[in-house]
Amino acid sequence: MGNPYYECPLPVTIPPAKPFLESIKLGIKETLFPDDPFRQFKNQPASRKFILGMQYFVPILEWAPRYTFEFFKADLIAGITIASLAVPQGISYASLASLPPIIGLYSSFVPPLVYAMLGSSKDLAVGTVAVASLLISSMLGKEVNPNENARLYVQLALTATFFAGVFQAALGLLRLGFIVDFLSHATIVGFMGGAATVVCLQQLKGILGLVRFTHGTDLVSVLRSVFSQTHQWRWESGVLGCCFLFFLVLTRYVSKRKPCFFWINAMAPMMSVIVGSVLVYLTNAEKYGVQVEGVAVGRSFAMFKNYHIDGNKEMIAFGMMNIAGSCVSCYLTTGPFSRTAVNFNAGCKTAGSNIVMAAAVMVTLLFLTPLFHYTPIVVLSSIIIAAMLGLIDYEAAIGLWKVDKCDFIVCVSAYIGVVFGSVEIGLVIAVTISLLRMLLSVARPRTFLLGNIPNSMIFRSIDQYPIANNIPGVLILQIDAPVYFANANYLRERWIYEEDEKLKSTGGSSLQYVILDLSAVGSTDTSGISMFKEVKKNIDRRGLKLVLANPRSEVIKKLVKSKFIESIGQEWIYLTVGEAVAACNFMLHASKSNNQVADEFDAHNNA
Amino acid sequence: MGNPYYECPLPVTIPPAKPFLESIKLGIKETLFPDDPFRQFKNQPASRKFILGMQYFVPILEWAPRYTFEFFKADLIAGITIASLAVPQGISYASLASLPPIIGLYSSFVPPLVYAMLGSSKDLAVGTVAVASLLISSMLGKEVNPNENARLYVQLALTATFFAGVFQAALGLLRLGFIVDFLSHATIVGFMGGAATVVCLQQLKGILGLVRFTHGTDLVSVLRSVFSQTHQWRWESGVLGCCFLFFLVLTRYVSKRKPCFFWINAMAPMMSVIVGSVLVYLTNAEKYGVQVEGVAVGRSFAMFKNYHIDGNKEMIAFGMMNIAGSCVSCYLTTGPFSRTAVNFNAGCKTAGSNIVMAAAVMVTLLFLTPLFHYTPIVVLSSIIIAAMLGLIDYEAAIGLWKVDKCDFIVCVSAYIGVVFGSVEIGLVIAVTISLLRMLLSVARPRTFLLGNIPNSMIFRSIDQYPIANNIPGVLILQIDAPVYFANANYLRERWIYEEDEKLKSTGGSSLQYVILDLSAVGSTDTSGISMFKEVKKNIDRRGLKLVLANPRSEVIKKLVKSKFIESIGQEWIYLTVGEAVAACNFMLHASKSNNQVADEFDAHNNA
Repeated sequence: MGNPYYECPLPVTIPPAKPFLESIKLGIKETLFPDDPFRQFKNQPASRKFILGMQYFVPILEWAPRYTFEFFKADLIAGITIASLAVPQGISYASLASLPPIIGLYSSFVPPLVYAMLGSSKDLAVGTVAVASLLISSMLGKEVNPNENARLYVQLALTATFFAGVFQAALGLLRLGFIVDFLSHATIVGFMGGAATVVCLQQLKGILGLVRFTHGTDLVSVLRSVFSQTHQWRWESGVLGCCFLFFLVLTRYVSKRKPCFFWINAMAPMMSVIVGSVLVYLTNAEKYGVQVEGVAVGRSFAMFKNYHIDGNKEMIAFGMMNIAGSCVSCYLTTGPFSRTAVNFNAGCKTAGSNIVMAAAVMVTLLFLTPLFHYTPIVVLSSIIIAAMLGLIDYEAAIGLWKVDKCDFIVCVSAYIGVVFGSVEIGLVIAVTISLLRMLLSVARPRTFLLGNIPNSMIFRSIDQYPIANNIPGVLILQIDAPVYFANANYLRERWIYEEDEKLKSTGGSSLQYVILDLSAVGSTDTSGISMFKEVKKNIDRRGLKLVLANPRSEVIKKLVKSKFIESIGQEWIYLTVGEAVAACNFMLHASKSNNQVADEFDAHNNA
Repeated sequence: MGNPYYECPLPVTIPPAKPFLESIKLGIKETLFPDDPFRQFKNQPASRKFILGMQYFVPILEWAPRYTFEFFKADLIAGITIASLAVPQGISYASLASLPPIIGLYSSFVPPLVYAMLGSSKDLAVGTVAVASLLISSMLGKEVNPNENARLYVQLALTATFFAGVFQAALGLLRLGFIVDFLSHATIVGFMGGAATVVCLQQLKGILGLVRFTHGTDLVSVLRSVFSQTHQWRWESGVLGCCFLFFLVLTRYVSKRKPCFFWINAMAPMMSVIVGSVLVYLTNAEKYGVQVEGVAVGRSFAMFKNYHIDGNKEMIAFGMMNIAGSCVSCYLTTGPFSRTAVNFNAGCKTAGSNIVMAAAVMVTLLFLTPLFHYTPIVVLSSIIIAAMLGLIDYEAAIGLWKVDKCDFIVCVSAYIGVVFGSVEIGLVIAVTISLLRMLLSVARPRTFLLGNIPNSMIFRSIDQYPIANNIPGVLILQIDAPVYFANANYLRERWIYEEDEKLKSTGGSSLQYVILDLSAVGSTDTSGISMFKEVKKNIDRRGLKLVLANPRSEVIKKLVKSKFIESIGQEWIYLTVGEAVAACNFMLHASKSNNQVADEFDAHNNA
């Protein structure tokens, strides 16, 4: 080995302490403004700042001056395509929310206009969504019966929309959009699947032509309600529903296989509505149990799918859109994922496609509403089911099972919670499990025993690299998480245990150094520092020496302030595990006259 | 540089996947049995297992057979010392809990006997404590007035003790003691200080000789109550109280400076009681406003101070002790820190000192109770205040401020919450802030830009080691936390931002490789993996190449399962950042005919 100090490029640096206020400022900036939204404002004259600011908050000012006829052609096609999807879905989702169909259409008219002004995504198509519609009917339905007191119910729904808008805008203004980050991918997959299942179950009413139906949303009450009135089932309605459903699912499948046929998928619901209405008008099917209803509309869930894409600013746009919408009889809207995908495939260029959609919906409102008078409920139910089936992402669930069992459990709990309990229960269960898992992983970090990879100065976990060799006389421990109050006690016990094991395995004679590799300890708190102090006391009591390797700047700052470094000695802090081991070996050489340990180490290294 | 592959000892190992059930089993073991309590039972015959099991659950079986006369002498002295502390404190704390004094004495008799059987700590002295006494009176006082309906109040207190015992034993049996780990050091300092302040404030009633007093525990209502009846203040009582308080604080100070005088501190409360009672008896001071009361007793808070020392097993012992105690008119007890310290200083050898204390208290109960009939309340108040002053650990608070501002904020919030709100509010605030801070630190991990430390293959954060050099054409990023759903979005934005900055600073021409150092990423979940995939897509879109360095076993397993490694290419995963950089440089050499980049790197390295 020669001189073990052959490579000691630099001692561990202790960064200067930052003033308290500065570090607080930095912390707030990192927490609330991680994307540094005002970056472009730096070093600009005031007039330019004003223009940039206006463009930042009202993005239409940015793209409208550069709008070309080419853009308009693309947006026109995309806008008409999403309008043909928005009209039937708006009607269907409003019925899901127990609202008058016309409100569903209004909601595809005003909010898209507001979004076109304030929104920054060019692909997003604004509209109502199924899960939010279901939430409205299940929550407001507890307070007011929509059939008995329709006026009050509508008022409540609009008030709820208004406050949802205020809440969204406030979260955005306060830069709290990151709260949504705490909904994990697994939670969303399970929750969306569960909600889609619940919405589908609700459609059994429409498909089977039932008149009475439960107000509950859980699987048990729906199935009980369905099977307690089998004599009420209308086969005409059922057959019609299955046909439309088959047609819709087929068109979706075709569009998915060949993206250039996106318009088939986009037009299918509209075609179903027209065919269904004409069929009813011609055959008087309403006399044979096929129920008929006018137009209807709903609020959106895609916030979970879109917020983390669009961030706090989008949240403000969504909030404003709902606040404005609620004042003109629109209920909750957002950017539904499926419709946004259609918009994207249709080749939209700017948020202008939303304006085109709004115009198309207005035309519908003015001239085509009488048509919807003959739209059979069963068609609306088929449209909802077809849209919902796309949200049950069983492939993602299988992927979760393969990659991460714990995420799969979170996903399944969310699903079961929604389907057997309610939307709120599912969400609470999933978020709780996700957070508990994270807390547990912080509370129980793993400790690794490191060994030397032969013919190198690299030290890696013996678990992962069985080829790595133990260093005689030295115990090298590594942890892979910040040291906090939540894990300090655990780590102390764990490390003492590891020392015991090592002492036992070596007969207690040769162990002299315990090296803690702190490379992965990003930060610590006072509980963590107390723990380090106790560990050092325990190591001293056994006559061993504690050595630290690669403490990070946050950690070393606190270790210095708490005088822990003094008690260890600055010379026992090394930049790498390799150097720490080399230094320990040097001392072992020096202390052992027969050089036994050093020979062992060399033998290991040359093996 | 020569051949950049000169040191490539081993490719990154991908450990075999563990069966699901096995990893679940391991997870449960690490979470609930981190201390491996049944280690000693392994590979033992059944009879030996039985004996070890009995000794494990009833530790007296282990030490009683080895008990010697030497041990007894030590325990006798320690037992009498703590009894002289237990009697006046028992009386005082019972009055704090609004319970009859005799219950305070009972509680220093039965629970210590139970603990001597079941407890495993030899230093712990069992008894009542102030904070729990305060909690009892403030919580039960809301339901029942102890003066009007004393019988019901006592029954309620005993029932509360019983259920507290059941709860403690259940937590211990279910191995959930780790929940207490979530109370950080800072929380405990602030909470204890606040509770001690509140208890002291309550004693103003006794010191000032007031008859009417508020039932509230917060600062505002106590001060209003005190200053609204200044004409009721009794100066005789106040002077007496201050004298005793001065005496008690002085003795504590002396004992602290010279540990061999521990008995002065231990005897002082008893002496105060005797002197006070005799004084009252001789002077008929009760006629001059010095109120007199019989004996009284309380339950303990030291669980926060002791549980994490003694673990789940001690929790069971405490639980059993309170269950048994509540059946024979004892209220809540635990191992108060101050009394345990006295026990330790008095040289106790086994839990036998608790038996001696119980015997001494029994003697007091049988023969000395008439004496306490003349004990002035002002003495009891002084004893409580003197004990509480020791719990206000302002030095620890100053230490928190110096080392970790955030911990200091937690501590101060706990203090303010307790003093201005209530004990529960303070606890909830402090735990919430601690958890939020931990969640935030997980949600906002830091990303570091790494540079090469000159004349070495070591790469460290440029922030911490300003001497470290950038590598031209290569961006090296490191994060210091597990990648979870809570931080995945943030990290994606952060990394894209870092790339932008680097591209800008290099003019966008020479950057070709982005190396992610995953050394400190202990684990990840499916949201984290989605994030890696999106980051890779973004890097590909810019025409750069993503390289990974040192992925840990948990992470690489999931990256392989999710086919991420396939998409990067196994050959772009390196064991160290140094190797990754060497490989990148080799490719840059090969691709640049004029070797400009390599020269730059060499120039940097030789600088």
